[in-house]
Amino acid sequence: MNSHPTAVVALGGNAISRKGEADTIANQFRHTRESLAAIIPLVKRGYNLAISHGNGPQVGNAILRVELAREKAPILPLGVCVADTEGGMGYMIAQSLQNRLLHEGIDRAVSAILTQVIVDRNDPDLANPSKFIGQFYSQEDAQRFAAERGWVVKPDGDRGWRRVVGSPTPKGIVEGPVIRAMVAGGAIVIAAGGGGIPVYIETDGTLEGLDVVVDKDRASAVLGREIGAQTLIILTEVDQVALNYGKPNQRFLSRITISEAKQYYAEKHFPPGSMGPKIEAAITFLESGGEKVLITSIDRAGEAVDGNAGTTIVPD
Amino acid sequence: MNSHPTAVVALGGNAISRKGEADTIANQFRHTRESLAAIIPLVKRGYNLAISHGNGPQVGNAILRVELAREKAPILPLGVCVADTEGGMGYMIAQSLQNRLLHEGIDRAVSAILTQVIVDRNDPDLANPSKFIGQFYSQEDAQRFAAERGWVVKPDGDRGWRRVVGSPTPKGIVEGPVIRAMVAGGAIVIAAGGGGIPVYIETDGTLEGLDVVVDKDRASAVLGREIGAQTLIILTEVDQVALNYGKPNQRFLSRITISEAKQYYAEKHFPPGSMGPKIEAAITFLESGGEKVLITSIDRAGEAVDGNAGTTIVPD
Repeated sequence: MNSHPTAVVALGGNAISRKGEADTIANQFRHTRESLAAIIPLVKRGYNLAISHGNGPQVGNAILRVELAREKAPILPLGVCVADTEGGMGYMIAQSLQNRLLHEGIDRAVSAILTQVIVDRNDPDLANPSKFIGQFYSQEDAQRFAAERGWVVKPDGDRGWRRVVGSPTPKGIVEGPVIRAMVAGGAIVIAAGGGGIPVYIETDGTLEGLDVVVDKDRASAVLGREIGAQTLIILTEVDQVALNYGKPNQRFLSRITISEAKQYYAEKHFPPGSMGPKIEAAITFLESGGEKVLITSIDRAGEAVDGNAGTTIVPD
Repeated sequence: MNSHPTAVVALGGNAISRKGEADTIANQFRHTRESLAAIIPLVKRGYNLAISHGNGPQVGNAILRVELAREKAPILPLGVCVADTEGGMGYMIAQSLQNRLLHEGIDRAVSAILTQVIVDRNDPDLANPSKFIGQFYSQEDAQRFAAERGWVVKPDGDRGWRRVVGSPTPKGIVEGPVIRAMVAGGAIVIAAGGGGIPVYIETDGTLEGLDVVVDKDRASAVLGREIGAQTLIILTEVDQVALNYGKPNQRFLSRITISEAKQYYAEKHFPPGSMGPKIEAAITFLESGGEKVLITSIDRAGEAVDGNAGTTIVPD
């Protein structure tokens, strides 16, 4: 292993797709190129790097296509849809980064690797799934699909019913050792896309897919531990984490410890499905040997790495 | 690099999907597991290995889903569809092999890597594309899509009209050095799935996707050269290559030289779209430094490696 510091950068959903905008591949490529503004400063500072990314809109579209083609093309299980998005998105990110590095005159290998994330088949989250995926249905259709296909369905606000799946806690990365060796060798590795392809370990030790999804920030924390990263960088839509977010007494945080993060988490400053999983991921990463977590926006990532922007979370 | 011999194994289309059978994911996983019968003997003989695979049925289904969902989900270009299949199929093959190695008590890392294959934007094949992809249309629909979407369409036998794309000659593998390092380190790497994601090099040196497909055997030959493989193993539906295939004077070939292969190729013993590209791939591989090409079936691969089955092609 070389002596460079190692970081995992988790690209947020907005790094590739934007709400309220046509989700064309041209737009996805454009946003991907823009999001490299967060990666290049790390490359220039000599970091060994793994890059993870979300896949919310893409896997939603993949599921929608499978549904609309149900009578004419094989039904793909959710895990294979996630794997497909690791393919298409890994390609987009890898090629965009390869091109940018060429322009910057930086010679670094880039590659995207299919990643399976290990979860516990008895994870308590699976008994009461709450992660909405795919399209909206009428109550009648949703309940019929539940009966016919074994789905769990629930109403999602006022817009109708949707399928829900579990979002269990990631425990390990099957390809962890390979990714570690590649990253230590200087390659920039795109891994754990969409939180990884969820698998559990059978009693005989073999791997088996599971129709669930894993939060990409939590998977990134586990990936970071497995590759020996000192730093986890979680990119999101805001420059800094805030207490009382969006309220008159909102206060941005520049630097906090794990204990403070846990206290604010307990005080419900960080909503589930938004900042909550990022803070959970940060705590997991630091408690398993990580040295520093940065949470910031794409635009401020370079400054954040230098300690001049973002929210830094450190051990006590 | 360790001192083990290195091989590329190209899994045929029938390794994962079978004609005349429902193309469910369960069946695809089953055939994938069966096809490992060809891989395990090589692992046991200590080979460093890269595995490539076709994606014909899978990319056909991906294109069909995109078409059927055109009004509701983003249109994916052909290159992204290929990347998606590298994701889903790479996952299936990797997990199946990981499980099989566990049962065999063999400790080898396995991982699937997204692979871009470099082609020439001015490849003569692009001027007269002939590779049919996707579904059949009426002549009227096909010609409308040609006008609206810039497709090239042609009649495909009696069943209707289809889109045709180019199948240019592969020139290189973008991820070649990374794959070479991984394979040399002992990992079994699934790469160049579906012939790789086709890209060309712009005048400024950057990579750009192209809506074409690359033959997976020809891509495997280039991959073999780039990772320094001595042996290329092309798995197909027949145990041996034949002259006068299917005719009364059919004669199976056990061992031939490049010169003989070229002569038989010129005599049109090897049909395009079938044995032809495999022989071309064999010649490319041997002329660029490869030592041996085996063409055989999944069931005979183990014997073929020991020189007791299949067709072996060697330099003069």
